[in-house]
Amino acid sequence: MAKDKSPRRPRAETPKGFRDYFGTDVTERKDMLHAIAEVYHRYGFDPLETSAVETVEALGKFLPDVDRPNEGVFGWQDEDDQWLALRYDLTAPLARVAAQFRNDLPSPYRRYAMGPVWRNEKPGPGRFRQFYQCDADTVGAPSVAADAEICAMLSDSLETVGIPRGDYIVRVNNRKVLNGVMEAAGLYDAADQSRFVEERGIVLRAIDKLDRLGEAGVRALLGEGRKDASGDVTKGAGLATEQAEIVMGFMAAKRATGGETALRLRELVGTSATGLEGVQELETIAEILDRQGYAADRIEVDPSVVRGLGYYTGPVFEAELTFEILDEKGAKRQFGSVAGGGRYDDLVKRFTGQAVPATGVSIGVDRLLAALRAKGRMGGDAAGPVIVTVMDRDRMADYMGMAADLRNAGIRAEVYLGNPKNFGNQLKYADKRASPIAVIQGGDECAKGTVVLKDLILGARIAEGASLEEWKARPAQVEIPRGDLVAEVRKMLG
Amino acid sequence: MAKDKSPRRPRAETPKGFRDYFGTDVTERKDMLHAIAEVYHRYGFDPLETSAVETVEALGKFLPDVDRPNEGVFGWQDEDDQWLALRYDLTAPLARVAAQFRNDLPSPYRRYAMGPVWRNEKPGPGRFRQFYQCDADTVGAPSVAADAEICAMLSDSLETVGIPRGDYIVRVNNRKVLNGVMEAAGLYDAADQSRFVEERGIVLRAIDKLDRLGEAGVRALLGEGRKDASGDVTKGAGLATEQAEIVMGFMAAKRATGGETALRLRELVGTSATGLEGVQELETIAEILDRQGYAADRIEVDPSVVRGLGYYTGPVFEAELTFEILDEKGAKRQFGSVAGGGRYDDLVKRFTGQAVPATGVSIGVDRLLAALRAKGRMGGDAAGPVIVTVMDRDRMADYMGMAADLRNAGIRAEVYLGNPKNFGNQLKYADKRASPIAVIQGGDECAKGTVVLKDLILGARIAEGASLEEWKARPAQVEIPRGDLVAEVRKMLG
Repeated sequence: MAKDKSPRRPRAETPKGFRDYFGTDVTERKDMLHAIAEVYHRYGFDPLETSAVETVEALGKFLPDVDRPNEGVFGWQDEDDQWLALRYDLTAPLARVAAQFRNDLPSPYRRYAMGPVWRNEKPGPGRFRQFYQCDADTVGAPSVAADAEICAMLSDSLETVGIPRGDYIVRVNNRKVLNGVMEAAGLYDAADQSRFVEERGIVLRAIDKLDRLGEAGVRALLGEGRKDASGDVTKGAGLATEQAEIVMGFMAAKRATGGETALRLRELVGTSATGLEGVQELETIAEILDRQGYAADRIEVDPSVVRGLGYYTGPVFEAELTFEILDEKGAKRQFGSVAGGGRYDDLVKRFTGQAVPATGVSIGVDRLLAALRAKGRMGGDAAGPVIVTVMDRDRMADYMGMAADLRNAGIRAEVYLGNPKNFGNQLKYADKRASPIAVIQGGDECAKGTVVLKDLILGARIAEGASLEEWKARPAQVEIPRGDLVAEVRKMLG
Repeated sequence: MAKDKSPRRPRAETPKGFRDYFGTDVTERKDMLHAIAEVYHRYGFDPLETSAVETVEALGKFLPDVDRPNEGVFGWQDEDDQWLALRYDLTAPLARVAAQFRNDLPSPYRRYAMGPVWRNEKPGPGRFRQFYQCDADTVGAPSVAADAEICAMLSDSLETVGIPRGDYIVRVNNRKVLNGVMEAAGLYDAADQSRFVEERGIVLRAIDKLDRLGEAGVRALLGEGRKDASGDVTKGAGLATEQAEIVMGFMAAKRATGGETALRLRELVGTSATGLEGVQELETIAEILDRQGYAADRIEVDPSVVRGLGYYTGPVFEAELTFEILDEKGAKRQFGSVAGGGRYDDLVKRFTGQAVPATGVSIGVDRLLAALRAKGRMGGDAAGPVIVTVMDRDRMADYMGMAADLRNAGIRAEVYLGNPKNFGNQLKYADKRASPIAVIQGGDECAKGTVVLKDLILGARIAEGASLEEWKARPAQVEIPRGDLVAEVRKMLG
């Protein structure tokens, strides 16, 4: 007979692909979001916070860069059989809000939004199913001045959170130029935009992979297709050599200045009206940014930027960190993209039938934090609290009073609230909390009206081998009157 | 034949029970959370941010105050057939974290957490399915000093966010005292705590309803049961009159001072060891708080506080706002509870089998914001941006440059990015944005190198009938050199 088993205990685990954030991981992100919000605010953007849950109908059932419906999101049916889902980005909820409140919102509507989004995708190293986005969008502004503004704001945001000029670049391109190039290559028919959609998709993805596949790999994808190291074949766009040359020329169109790049792009788009309009828009953006002092060391026109998403209709932009970091294997690599966006004129139309021009950017806050930590510009431990130790558990009220006095003076402080029996455990706890000072009052001190302050930072330094001078100059332990507690702690904290 | 219909457009609506937050609703909550976090930090608490999604297994399938499993949460099955759900509070994820990381976290572990939680409940006026909580808990501290600390911190938090002393009260009670009273009334058997569980539940809920039902209603529930106005019958606990008297006496046990209340409670619990322990704990808490200066005008022992949740095992506390507001119908009423908590020693045990003593508080941030707005202490409009109007769309770069100059000087500013054709629309937009100043530069001004500043706040005041003196002293419109833009705007903003 099988033995009876007591019911299995629940596993204390996050679901696959989710994680917890502790201590400075939380506060550093909060501080970064706050700093970016200040920039967005200064540019006239107003905050919007939508809820995590939307109807699948409003979300559109699609992740923007995934073709399969109902995949990529966490969804469920509510009691009315309506499908609900967690938002996968902050743009889809904005489109819903812009449609729902179109009679009340100012137009143009500049809004920023910050918060977690959820993707039901395969998690991987550093890839989680919940992560933060930090977006700013302008809805109802047809002018590319709105796109230029977003680029300037992105540049300001990066510098505000601690990425110095020279360590990043905002690259700008225009989908219309790309469409013009496609037209020149015989892959775009302005009169029937649905023709060659598949081929253009392949070209778009090929361009996006230039970094990874190199020129030869992209050429293969533009032509017959490409076989990778494992033998898998990716279908090509089937372009003739002359057609492929035009596309390759586009990717290499970047010149020393924005003006020269624009000239080269004009050559490439030939007589395509769409392409010429796109070049004109890039020139306008460059002029606006130049006038505000955003030179090519911060924002530049770069035809190799295409952005993966299908919904962009005009300018697209991407911010890249240009410094190198060491990856998991210790190899140097460029950190890469931390933000991107562009103009999308059709998202609100889904709801209202009317096209509403919109443009915006999304900053990948978690990646930006990772970058700053990789550069050692962030990730310090927060200062721990002063720990009031407990020598006599019957005098808890006294110890709590000491901590209260310190806190009332603005000093972070707490009483040790574990079992006080073993004094060593109290000091171990203080160490784990990175506490700068332990306050000690046993029976003798209590009778004398004194307390002992133990300098734990100096103590640690002495343990690591401080010099004799240091030791003498600043004793690791002092006995002081109880009445001087706040003043002496403040002095010791420096 | 039925006409072909084009596919229905998606509805631009939030799901039932969810809502959007705009502008100051977002920033005021953020500021409040930040202010409370500062207090928690000063008390030595560290931030923790868990993800929105947990396994149903880890959440425990139950809302703490709901008896039915799998109700009250938003849940779904993932691709491995595991049930996942949105967290319904911040305590269940803490219990999971405390178990999962028990070898790494300091002990005691003081943590705070802030964020949205989700309840799959019937929404109502002011009741939403997503709302914010702001919790602080100490895990691994058996001493009631930890409970006293939480009460003091709650008091400090309320004052920090703008509830002055006298407008709130933190009430403290102890479940052990209640259990002692139950024992004295013959409803609690320390040797077999499962006896009379149903009766105790009815008594607990009856006490919790004293405010609403009055003494007679509670007496009915303690005895045979109660028929409400609609004729519905609520089952009673079936107590004899003498038993009911003891319970009623408990609710009325509050005296002028904590000491006198404790004396009265001692009488009521009689010889119950559990009850006497509870009274002793209340006395310890009162002593600790007194010593720190938290008198009865801030924190008081009040036996009528029981808290609905079943999982509390010791001290329970509740913060109530004592001022009156006007409800939706214009009637005066007390604002009521905005925070609550208590000691729960069994939540971590679910995972590990080992009891871990814990205590904590949850502040209902959205209710607190509503209270401050009801009192007119919050809810002002944010200052709108300075609006640079567009008189000549070919000089967009000039206008963008003006806005940039203002922003670089720290002044919130933007260029009007809608269709500039109708100047009236630009001023209407400025009005909608609560803009203080419109900057105007037409062809004439451009030729002269000047700009016009229009004081929109003064303009509005004049429209409302400002005095002639005011009008003269401060003209609503000035023409200034372009080079003085920043200085003059700053002067006008005051």
